[in-house]
Amino acid sequence: MSGSKCARLSGQLVRQVLDSVDCVLFDCDGVIWRGDKAIPGAPQVVKLLKQHGKRVFFVTNNSTKTRKMYADKMSTLGFDVTEDEVFGTAYCSAVYLQTVCKLQGKVYLVGSDAMKQELEAVGIQQTGLGPDHISGKQTDWARVALDPEVKAVLVGFDEHFSYMKLNRALQYITRSECLFVGTNRDSRLPLEGGTAVPGTGCLLQAVETAAQRQAATVGKPNRFMFDCVASKFGVDPGRCLMVGDRLDTDIMLGSNCGLKTLLTLTGVSTVAEAEAIQKSGCAERQGMVPDYYVESIADLLPALQG
Amino acid sequence: MSGSKCARLSGQLVRQVLDSVDCVLFDCDGVIWRGDKAIPGAPQVVKLLKQHGKRVFFVTNNSTKTRKMYADKMSTLGFDVTEDEVFGTAYCSAVYLQTVCKLQGKVYLVGSDAMKQELEAVGIQQTGLGPDHISGKQTDWARVALDPEVKAVLVGFDEHFSYMKLNRALQYITRSECLFVGTNRDSRLPLEGGTAVPGTGCLLQAVETAAQRQAATVGKPNRFMFDCVASKFGVDPGRCLMVGDRLDTDIMLGSNCGLKTLLTLTGVSTVAEAEAIQKSGCAERQGMVPDYYVESIADLLPALQG
Repeated sequence: MSGSKCARLSGQLVRQVLDSVDCVLFDCDGVIWRGDKAIPGAPQVVKLLKQHGKRVFFVTNNSTKTRKMYADKMSTLGFDVTEDEVFGTAYCSAVYLQTVCKLQGKVYLVGSDAMKQELEAVGIQQTGLGPDHISGKQTDWARVALDPEVKAVLVGFDEHFSYMKLNRALQYITRSECLFVGTNRDSRLPLEGGTAVPGTGCLLQAVETAAQRQAATVGKPNRFMFDCVASKFGVDPGRCLMVGDRLDTDIMLGSNCGLKTLLTLTGVSTVAEAEAIQKSGCAERQGMVPDYYVESIADLLPALQG
Repeated sequence: MSGSKCARLSGQLVRQVLDSVDCVLFDCDGVIWRGDKAIPGAPQVVKLLKQHGKRVFFVTNNSTKTRKMYADKMSTLGFDVTEDEVFGTAYCSAVYLQTVCKLQGKVYLVGSDAMKQELEAVGIQQTGLGPDHISGKQTDWARVALDPEVKAVLVGFDEHFSYMKLNRALQYITRSECLFVGTNRDSRLPLEGGTAVPGTGCLLQAVETAAQRQAATVGKPNRFMFDCVASKFGVDPGRCLMVGDRLDTDIMLGSNCGLKTLLTLTGVSTVAEAEAIQKSGCAERQGMVPDYYVESIADLLPALQG
């Protein structure tokens, strides 16, 4: 294979790359599906990779689903996937708090019911789920009732995010020895038809601005999500391919962990963006330049069927 | 007067400095009051400055009150102040949208009833005031009902801030030709007893992260608030003293506008912080170093009474 990056993956090169890996990691949204529709050919790609003896995993920054909810959605869309092949930030954040932080105490959760479920599955109790509307006068807000057992604030996607939740997070974080963790920094959640809604990164920025402190983040490009996969399944980074639609999260994760990287153009980032970063020469950003790109992961099909 | 900055203002120097100015601008919270209590001696300082023929103005980033509400609060705390001497960001944002932006259309308001009142006083209609809770499914959020007459998003302090407001702001901003303005970037609102609650800066950061775009901000250190005072009362910047408790807003505003600057230690910033910035030699930050400092503005009393 040539040493140049950002090469179009086609023809003979597809089989060469696939032969060089034992394991393929896929991002989900914009890669294997968009919204509620599978990318055409994607279920077949996953099926054939497995038939060729590859291990396949799914690594998503989205914190709104448990592993089980992902496996169910994938099944509905025609993918043959088991729960333990899926790594979302709801699950990985719970693992992070348990294994890395060794949290002894409760979590103040700005997040989803899925996050609550994944926390409870590893034995961590939470408080904070659901609506929390403003009440009382401003002078009361700093004296809002807090749970003395809370030792960490975890911020993920929360459709009930509110000023009072922001305030409660601030009051917890300014107590002594409170951990501060975010699921991910994605600024927008892309939906079908080119629309988007605010992502977890917005909520995390709000809490960080109040706290005057940076959260540790679990999601891509932080290598923790790959470490979750590697420690559970013993995969060799040098024989893994990371497939994603975002340069700043998916491709950067792959580079951070020494994986081969493949950008697919069915989502957020473009080849022009990757080439611009490559030409900029900016050392810190070179990890965002993928080894290869495809129009869609369906471009892998001929090599897998041949 | 000596050329060195960050000098303690005491003794003879107080009268020299006061003689060199015709106009004194005070920040409010942490300077003339804290929460609901006047700084001891502050009402007397304001009264004596006026008796000595000085013009006195109040310039605050807080967006939760109209000029009338400020004048009423000041009156309750013993200050002799009229409505037109007060410049808050609720009022100044309305003036900014009217005179600088020449807005033709409505505002989507993330803010307070005071902001609504000040907008309406200059003939600008708003939509968005009050609670806006989440409803429907994620796929519906990007298609939320929008008012076609809205041509600007204005973000100020909003105790009803919610995910849906954040989303609605994003949907307006991503339409063509929508202005995006914030009242200020203060990250926290300090309350009595060393406590604090999240400030407008948190909400603005959340919207900016979603919008992937910076808002124009009206509040200090942006010179617009001084321009409001200067254009209305024809003051000479070289003969003005800006008195504040924050280096990054009050003192920076004074430096940006060529005013003399006085840090008072009854609020947020310390002399040590100012000296550290001075020693850092960082050119961009030298505007945060005040000319003078006092423990409290009551330190001006002897010179005014003498």
